[in-house]
Amino acid sequence: MKRLEMLSTLAHKNDKKILLWVFDGIGGLPHPETGKTELETAVTPHIDAFVARSMTGRTLAFGQGVTPGSGPGHLALFGYPNDQIVIGRGVLEVLGSSEVLLGGERVSRFSLSKGDVAARCNFATRQVVGGQAVITDRRAGKPATAVSTALVQRISAEVSIEGVEVFLLPGKEHRFSVVFRGEGLVGEVTETDPQVTGAAALRCEPCTPAAARAAEVVNAFVDQINTILADEPAANTALLRGIAGRPDIPTLPELFGLRCGAIAAYPMYRGIASLLGFDVLGDPKTWAEEVEVLKANYDSYDLFYLHIKETDSVSHLGHFDEKVKIFEQCDALFQAAIELGFEVVIITGDHCTPSTLMEHSWHPIPTVMGHPGCLFDDVGKLGERACARGTLGDIEARDLVPLAMAASGKFLKYGA
Amino acid sequence: MKRLEMLSTLAHKNDKKILLWVFDGIGGLPHPETGKTELETAVTPHIDAFVARSMTGRTLAFGQGVTPGSGPGHLALFGYPNDQIVIGRGVLEVLGSSEVLLGGERVSRFSLSKGDVAARCNFATRQVVGGQAVITDRRAGKPATAVSTALVQRISAEVSIEGVEVFLLPGKEHRFSVVFRGEGLVGEVTETDPQVTGAAALRCEPCTPAAARAAEVVNAFVDQINTILADEPAANTALLRGIAGRPDIPTLPELFGLRCGAIAAYPMYRGIASLLGFDVLGDPKTWAEEVEVLKANYDSYDLFYLHIKETDSVSHLGHFDEKVKIFEQCDALFQAAIELGFEVVIITGDHCTPSTLMEHSWHPIPTVMGHPGCLFDDVGKLGERACARGTLGDIEARDLVPLAMAASGKFLKYGA
Repeated sequence: MKRLEMLSTLAHKNDKKILLWVFDGIGGLPHPETGKTELETAVTPHIDAFVARSMTGRTLAFGQGVTPGSGPGHLALFGYPNDQIVIGRGVLEVLGSSEVLLGGERVSRFSLSKGDVAARCNFATRQVVGGQAVITDRRAGKPATAVSTALVQRISAEVSIEGVEVFLLPGKEHRFSVVFRGEGLVGEVTETDPQVTGAAALRCEPCTPAAARAAEVVNAFVDQINTILADEPAANTALLRGIAGRPDIPTLPELFGLRCGAIAAYPMYRGIASLLGFDVLGDPKTWAEEVEVLKANYDSYDLFYLHIKETDSVSHLGHFDEKVKIFEQCDALFQAAIELGFEVVIITGDHCTPSTLMEHSWHPIPTVMGHPGCLFDDVGKLGERACARGTLGDIEARDLVPLAMAASGKFLKYGA
Repeated sequence: MKRLEMLSTLAHKNDKKILLWVFDGIGGLPHPETGKTELETAVTPHIDAFVARSMTGRTLAFGQGVTPGSGPGHLALFGYPNDQIVIGRGVLEVLGSSEVLLGGERVSRFSLSKGDVAARCNFATRQVVGGQAVITDRRAGKPATAVSTALVQRISAEVSIEGVEVFLLPGKEHRFSVVFRGEGLVGEVTETDPQVTGAAALRCEPCTPAAARAAEVVNAFVDQINTILADEPAANTALLRGIAGRPDIPTLPELFGLRCGAIAAYPMYRGIASLLGFDVLGDPKTWAEEVEVLKANYDSYDLFYLHIKETDSVSHLGHFDEKVKIFEQCDALFQAAIELGFEVVIITGDHCTPSTLMEHSWHPIPTVMGHPGCLFDDVGKLGERACARGTLGDIEARDLVPLAMAASGKFLKYGA
């Protein structure tokens, strides 16, 4: 965080705009027959033209040899030291949920706020055995998602804790999540899952005096569920795990005075961006709609993050040709986006997902950065191998945002 | 160590095998007449074929501008942060000794164990001057090696400290080393060398209460030498320096669950590898024997380290053509090795030793890493300049083992 704090002191506002165009899982490996990767195969004349006047390079999200998940990958992409900041599993899950209920009603826009406490929950079965209430099934017989969603709805409609808003997020099968919002909630509390069957559920305990209120709230929540679901044969209680507050990360608006807009179709990416101070823009469902949202909001932001999920999704399925096609289909959209007049444009990813591996990978992320007057190289086509010899070089992903700040005149000189 | 500890949490066992083929002092500089380096000159068709389907790059063992010794060079090669771990001079000397005596007999296999305390010793001359025994020559007139070796033999046959095994290692001229092995020995004790003549030898003192027993043992050792060598005119005592325990480094088996096998002809390299958890395999005297040992042990290990010393030795003598020939002579052996079926194969060095300099150097180390489906580049010949533009890039030597772990599927994803 020390470097980020130092960089923060250099920040200088102007009206230049930056576009961070993110192909999720961008990088690949050679096709066994052609010897070419997905990027190297794709016909993308507009992207090529941009690359020809830009600097190519490769980024690493978490050093050599490490395959980053979406959390560490995006922290790096936005300039954060992801070895010092961790977004917990529970928080990520909440950030990635598309449906949020409050008082039994769907909340149209939900983002985790400072002071919120989030937890992952499992429906479980609680029975009196030998005079004591014990957990006999930690997953309540794995109810169907439709069944558990209905139960979450019921809890949301009936639960009531004074001074606390209880947001409920349905999940798959026995899983759901909860967010408590109210004064004086601190997430440093213990879990309630006994981890074994035949034992009583644990009471939530505060780990610090400041967390006493949060522990009370968690216990009240569980007590109410026990009442609300008392007539359920299996899913008659809930166990809470990974209870944690929203991580206290300085946002990009706070650090650099940037107005940040995020354009993404998938909830998790909208959530991570919102955690770091991005306004989540529109509700695009397609790449074309994403670019429309970009156009509509162009004047109101300094840094845009535009996320294309499908390059990753098809790679996980091993669909080499599909990935090639997505790059090709995005080519004209990319051109439409950059014609808006950005000072700095970056194409990169949060990690690689070679379709030959069908998984995220540890490889350096092909990256290109262009701005007027930049030190363009002789690379004229985006590709894993070409990017290994460009003028941007092999850099840390967390250096991209600072480089974009510099290239758009948003950083002052350091030192006299 | 923090990163290594994090990487350790990602480790995942499988049956894929890794070969780390190390040409000591691999890299060179242009021959003044041809403008080509040793690697660039050598005719190595098998290595070339491997390079053509692999990723080339360059590694640094200790950052730019620093010429690493064998200790830091090998720590980096095996993935360790050599700026945070130091293998003491005394320990290195012990690790590098080929002859070890216990009770006057040669020990066939010796490796430093946890709890051992090692020290460098000098034969010295002790005389009574003005009623006090003082050191009058700190090197005992530099005896010939054969003479001092015989004295070490005599000490080894006669020394006896209850509950302690005293291993003695002859050295050159006035030098030798000692290792004390026994319960409760802690190496945090002071030296006995007064550093000046005319002063008494120092008594060894414990720096911590736990080291009291080790100090007693050192003093008993010196007292017995004084008795055993009382009739010697010059070498009648010994001064002990650099007294230290075996460094407490987590081993590769501990960190990554890897079964590690080291194949090296020279004691120091066997010693360093053994310190980091490698089993030292066989007793090869030639490169061909090294490959035979590799074949014989292929099924029993996950990571093999195979060390070729002579590329360094001939470079120290300035023999450019000899170094070229060694690469050429190893070419078919390398091919025989990789045909065993390794998932990941790396050719690298612990440092460069350009024969034009006749010394170790600070230059990035030519490195190549190949595995099925890798992002092979257009480099088809191993060489200092070709490696500067490969897809492996310029990386830290300590990243090689993590990259090999990733490439062989031995690392899980980091973060959600």
